[in-house]
Amino acid sequence: MYSNGDIFVGEIIGTAILILLGAGVCAAVTLSHSKAKASGWVVIAFGWGFGVLAGAYTAGPLSGGHLNPAVTLGIAIDTGKWDKVWIYLLGQMVGAMLGAVLAYLVYLAQFNANVTRGAKGDSEGVHVPTPTLGIFSTIPEIRNPVANLITEVIATVALVLPILAFGLTKGLGESGTQTLIVAFLVVGIGLSLGGPTGYAINPARDLGPRIVHTFLPIPNKGTSDWSYAWIPVAGPLIGGALAGVIYNAAF
Amino acid sequence: MYSNGDIFVGEIIGTAILILLGAGVCAAVTLSHSKAKASGWVVIAFGWGFGVLAGAYTAGPLSGGHLNPAVTLGIAIDTGKWDKVWIYLLGQMVGAMLGAVLAYLVYLAQFNANVTRGAKGDSEGVHVPTPTLGIFSTIPEIRNPVANLITEVIATVALVLPILAFGLTKGLGESGTQTLIVAFLVVGIGLSLGGPTGYAINPARDLGPRIVHTFLPIPNKGTSDWSYAWIPVAGPLIGGALAGVIYNAAF
Amino acid sequence: MYSNGDIFVGEIIGTAILILLGAGVCAAVTLSHSKAKASGWVVIAFGWGFGVLAGAYTAGPLSGGHLNPAVTLGIAIDTGKWDKVWIYLLGQMVGAMLGAVLAYLVYLAQFNANVTRGAKGDSEGVHVPTPTLGIFSTIPEIRNPVANLITEVIATVALVLPILAFGLTKGLGESGTQTLIVAFLVVGIGLSLGGPTGYAINPARDLGPRIVHTFLPIPNKGTSDWSYAWIPVAGPLIGGALAGVIYNAAF
Amino acid sequence: MYSNGDIFVGEIIGTAILILLGAGVCAAVTLSHSKAKASGWVVIAFGWGFGVLAGAYTAGPLSGGHLNPAVTLGIAIDTGKWDKVWIYLLGQMVGAMLGAVLAYLVYLAQFNANVTRGAKGDSEGVHVPTPTLGIFSTIPEIRNPVANLITEVIATVALVLPILAFGLTKGLGESGTQTLIVAFLVVGIGLSLGGPTGYAINPARDLGPRIVHTFLPIPNKGTSDWSYAWIPVAGPLIGGALAGVIYNAAF
Repeated sequence: MYSNGDIFVGEIIGTAILILLGAGVCAAVTLSHSKAKASGWVVIAFGWGFGVLAGAYTAGPLSGGHLNPAVTLGIAIDTGKWDKVWIYLLGQMVGAMLGAVLAYLVYLAQFNANVTRGAKGDSEGVHVPTPTLGIFSTIPEIRNPVANLITEVIATVALVLPILAFGLTKGLGESGTQTLIVAFLVVGIGLSLGGPTGYAINPARDLGPRIVHTFLPIPNKGTSDWSYAWIPVAGPLIGGALAGVIYNAAF
Repeated sequence: MYSNGDIFVGEIIGTAILILLGAGVCAAVTLSHSKAKASGWVVIAFGWGFGVLAGAYTAGPLSGGHLNPAVTLGIAIDTGKWDKVWIYLLGQMVGAMLGAVLAYLVYLAQFNANVTRGAKGDSEGVHVPTPTLGIFSTIPEIRNPVANLITEVIATVALVLPILAFGLTKGLGESGTQTLIVAFLVVGIGLSLGGPTGYAINPARDLGPRIVHTFLPIPNKGTSDWSYAWIPVAGPLIGGALAGVIYNAAF
Repeated sequence: MYSNGDIFVGEIIGTAILILLGAGVCAAVTLSHSKAKASGWVVIAFGWGFGVLAGAYTAGPLSGGHLNPAVTLGIAIDTGKWDKVWIYLLGQMVGAMLGAVLAYLVYLAQFNANVTRGAKGDSEGVHVPTPTLGIFSTIPEIRNPVANLITEVIATVALVLPILAFGLTKGLGESGTQTLIVAFLVVGIGLSLGGPTGYAINPARDLGPRIVHTFLPIPNKGTSDWSYAWIPVAGPLIGGALAGVIYNAAF
Repeated sequence: MYSNGDIFVGEIIGTAILILLGAGVCAAVTLSHSKAKASGWVVIAFGWGFGVLAGAYTAGPLSGGHLNPAVTLGIAIDTGKWDKVWIYLLGQMVGAMLGAVLAYLVYLAQFNANVTRGAKGDSEGVHVPTPTLGIFSTIPEIRNPVANLITEVIATVALVLPILAFGLTKGLGESGTQTLIVAFLVVGIGLSLGGPTGYAINPARDLGPRIVHTFLPIPNKGTSDWSYAWIPVAGPLIGGALAGVIYNAAF
């Protein structure tokens, strides 16, 4: 029901806002010279949740506001309509990369101050730079492909199955109350299931910013950890598909 | 108005999501190698509340989303309809056990790293394992059966009486706004009344995961504390019944 | 439009729930042997706000859910209807006292463990009891009658003027969305304006529990501080009246 | 559709409430002798967000509740109607100054106790006064005009573009659910993008209180830092205009 152009633009804008706030909150909590430095997990989870709120509700009139290939996949399995899936995915990937660049620009002075010594405002002579990948993409606490994959699969089912059950198939971000509920659901998944892997639960959310991290000229940026990159893509896709199958069977 | 099959499936799915997020947030805050480690009571309370949000709203179209024998009991006393109560309870118990297993799987690597020595990532040689029962079931801060029972009774009245008054008797999880209010009510009860016993306020929420804790092969899992298990079952049932009686008298 | 009996019962139940959660969250954060011990101001503010949510929405169908003499006064000035004011106030005072007793019962074991030595679970021999008045009533950080009164007046205008403007004059707690907004308004006032005096902003909320504190047999309860008691009564009443006057002039 | 008088009064009242809660929460977290002292970034962000909620919903019936020149500018670019813009801006500036004075009065005793020695309640002889400008206006963590301006521009686009997309052009604060979503959007921007500059994202929010700070007789108030003052005015205006342009192009 949405035109191809609207879907593409809507998913770019919505996903960019999501990642701007999401990567932004990770920068806020992680980087030195940030007023939110070390403000804890509750800030991370609400920041990402309200990123979904802002992005999905903004994109709602244009594309329904999926912002997540796992959601798009679950809806496609539920509805059987696959012809627009590629436009959604393309818009989500472009939007995720754009959002990561915007978050980098918001924290430009903080990234540039993330140097080995003489960081502005530091009294001590030597300063150990903060690793930056965690601002852009997810890193597991314990590196175990099977366990990490299981975590991402279950957490994504816990995201997509409720979304499908909420009856949001047609126009996710168009109802204010339901978008609010999805946002708090995302906060809840973050609080509860984000502990082991940092809850990608969205392939574009992890892959797009990882590409940006690889190419951006960030001082002391450290590794982009491409060996892990397949898990936050495969896990959420499996989870989204599983949610679609469970939904069709149970509802 | 719901079919027996829908009630059974709805309560299983809804309660599983509730316990997945609820036990999940306890694991997130408790276990080592979790990004949310030691993030505090506010995280616990919002995690459980958004677990109710996700579970109830998902189960809404199938069963109304009770997810709690105390709620089912209060509604039965209010409406006088008892014939479907057993299906609700059965679904809630199965769902609670399923959710506890899922939460265990999400934190699999963390549970497996909860060992006496050589835990991955620990620099020190000896590591004291974290007790695990509190992730699954409630433990009182001061063990006093009378006081603990009073706490659970009053806290459950504070849950079920508002739910009945909200006019949600028919289809708890079907109105988005009201489900949101119930979720924040659960957050509030957690913040305010959870201090002494960890607020079971739901027999299935405590008993189901305790059974799972007894049988799961968790390293260093410690006691399942069955001597306390009757209080978080009896207290919420008394509270739910009391709420039904008060509601019928006052409204 | 509500019957006298419904108003009386509604305000009792609603205010009791409000104070149960409000005094409860203060006990949760203050007392030893509480899982929420020292969990901070954000917990206090959300606990009180969700107490308003639960109480107002429960009382909504019976009385509109004022729960606060300052709100009742502001509405009376706005509407010019004064004949039911006394029933509201009576119900609010009874409810506030009932709620304080219930909160005491929820934390019974914690209050009883609040002793000079040998508190259960304490390893050290001597334990300094926690002051208990702050769980029931407000205590200013800096004792200055003029400044304290100004704080309570302005904070209450910030509560009652929005409530009047929300168009809630008829049936405060009957619209879910508006009750949710009032609840978050109360959270906001707590976060922002609670610093100096602990934000009574409600005469019944302070006076009722103070009476209960005077008579309850709490170990080491300390003073009930009656010399301060007039400020959290007078301030909110002035603020509520002022809000009614401003509303009539501006809207 | 609103009369000039209603717009003026509505924006004064709404912006005053916003700044009362916003400056209030900064005072609450910053000043000694405040119960919310050092309660962290999550308190700041929710305090400002619920300030928007209270102010916008109160002003809704009178003016639509813009409360922010950047929002007014974005809406003017979107709708092409410029004739009432000056009344909105005037009301917003008067309201912001009024709100800052009210916040000062709420924390009067705390401001007066912010002295070099002998502060009431301090046991030590010498007390270093807390800087006060950060309670009224924004201060960047790293002073870099280009980076600070970029931060404010992007953060304001992230505020105004969603607001325009929410279809709130006519009557921002008149729909409860949408006002709630805007409030949580503001919380999200604070959590995520507030780290570098303290997120003015509103010229009146920064300039009005800075004027008040310059003239109020606050003990040890320190500098009003007028050399930075143009950035939190120019950045949000550029951001608001940019959002209007993007909205017109994309939607």
